[in-house]
Amino acid sequence: MNDRIWTAGLVVIGDEILSGRTQDRNVAQLASWLNVQGIRLAEVRVVSDRTDAIVEAVNALRTRNDYCFTTGGIGPTHDDITVDAVAAALGVPVVVHPEARAMLERHYETRGGLTEARLRMARVPEGAGLIPNRMSGAPGIRIDNLFILAGVPHITAGMLDALTGSLEGGRPVLARTLGCWVPESEIADILRAVERDHSGEGADAVSIGSYPFFREGKVGANFVVRATDQARLDACADDLAARVAATGRTIVEGGI
Amino acid sequence: MNDRIWTAGLVVIGDEILSGRTQDRNVAQLASWLNVQGIRLAEVRVVSDRTDAIVEAVNALRTRNDYCFTTGGIGPTHDDITVDAVAAALGVPVVVHPEARAMLERHYETRGGLTEARLRMARVPEGAGLIPNRMSGAPGIRIDNLFILAGVPHITAGMLDALTGSLEGGRPVLARTLGCWVPESEIADILRAVERDHSGEGADAVSIGSYPFFREGKVGANFVVRATDQARLDACADDLAARVAATGRTIVEGGI
Repeated sequence: MNDRIWTAGLVVIGDEILSGRTQDRNVAQLASWLNVQGIRLAEVRVVSDRTDAIVEAVNALRTRNDYCFTTGGIGPTHDDITVDAVAAALGVPVVVHPEARAMLERHYETRGGLTEARLRMARVPEGAGLIPNRMSGAPGIRIDNLFILAGVPHITAGMLDALTGSLEGGRPVLARTLGCWVPESEIADILRAVERDHSGEGADAVSIGSYPFFREGKVGANFVVRATDQARLDACADDLAARVAATGRTIVEGGI
Repeated sequence: MNDRIWTAGLVVIGDEILSGRTQDRNVAQLASWLNVQGIRLAEVRVVSDRTDAIVEAVNALRTRNDYCFTTGGIGPTHDDITVDAVAAALGVPVVVHPEARAMLERHYETRGGLTEARLRMARVPEGAGLIPNRMSGAPGIRIDNLFILAGVPHITAGMLDALTGSLEGGRPVLARTLGCWVPESEIADILRAVERDHSGEGADAVSIGSYPFFREGKVGANFVVRATDQARLDACADDLAARVAATGRTIVEGGI
């Protein structure tokens, strides 16, 4: 059971991402955080601020992953509909969480008081718990395997901090990066052969990604070997390094 | 018919995005480009380098949008499986495109010749056309309403340049941004009322997005009004500006 692979899905909610106005940062942030928890980000969907779109994506990703996260749409304004959409997806009503209400009352005590709009941020799907938010008044929300987080990246980061160590996961994915000033097409055969020779299933899997770049007027590529087992990772990466070196090329451990 | 809304889906293919190693740039790039063509990015899915994941996402997004784009996975190495996966999604075989083969032969004439690995980049789903690539040898691919683009952002950009003006669209979405040094919760009621008073359906729709920020030790928000009709856009934005100004606050046209 220790070797089972734990996965998560992410639903990024927001017209600002789909319009190109805002560059998403939460996919990379959540992916890196999840890996430390031993959980793999398996799929991301970016959807607009529409209930039907959120419901469909949340239901698809929560049922086929161990965990499902959402980012965005939990503020006090009319376009913040994530809580209502998630409640609809789960088939439960929306209620005011007494602890969230108390947190917001304290936060806004010296900031004009808890208005109707601000009270919206205490609304949760019935049965939910809270995720602390050190940055601003409104907490994140946890219900079943669903985690409803803020969209503003530094607030998202604070909520992830609060969750660190509280989710069950498996072994983190380990990676070694090897760089080389070579067109990836020239050593594609080596890459394919090495991956085939070291392939495994499930928690024993080893994969090689090839990521070309163009810098300083020259082409090169970084090869990222990924595995959960350190010995299998090193065996594959060492073999790749040796076979590339045998063609007379220089390998840069750690990547270029 | 001129008022119908044209939509596109995007499938971002790549373990490097899901692992957090690479920050995606293509969602924002494609979204901005599409808007100029009068097409809205309706949904994005980020999937791993697995055939079944790509097939599912491509089939979901190509059938419910006017257009479907993919980015990533069209290089010469073993982890580049987009062409095979798209062909599987469409139920057609993969063939070598003679024109793509000729382009690659010319490109690699002085670079070591067209090897087996490089010839992979001439493979297309049967019936496909090519999208020129000024940056490197391998072209993009167009078949039916599907556009298969490179993952490296500056190469993606070159392919989008080549497509500019060739896709039918509707009226572009116009936007006006109004900024204010105010917690969004303090004017949430105004936002809601203004959007309700100016709402419309389909091509007449007007929406307001509220995007809070924290800078220089103060909180503020930008309000983005979006519509396809200039008069309706201005009526809504002017009304919002007037109602916020009536509370004694200063509106910054163009945003903060």
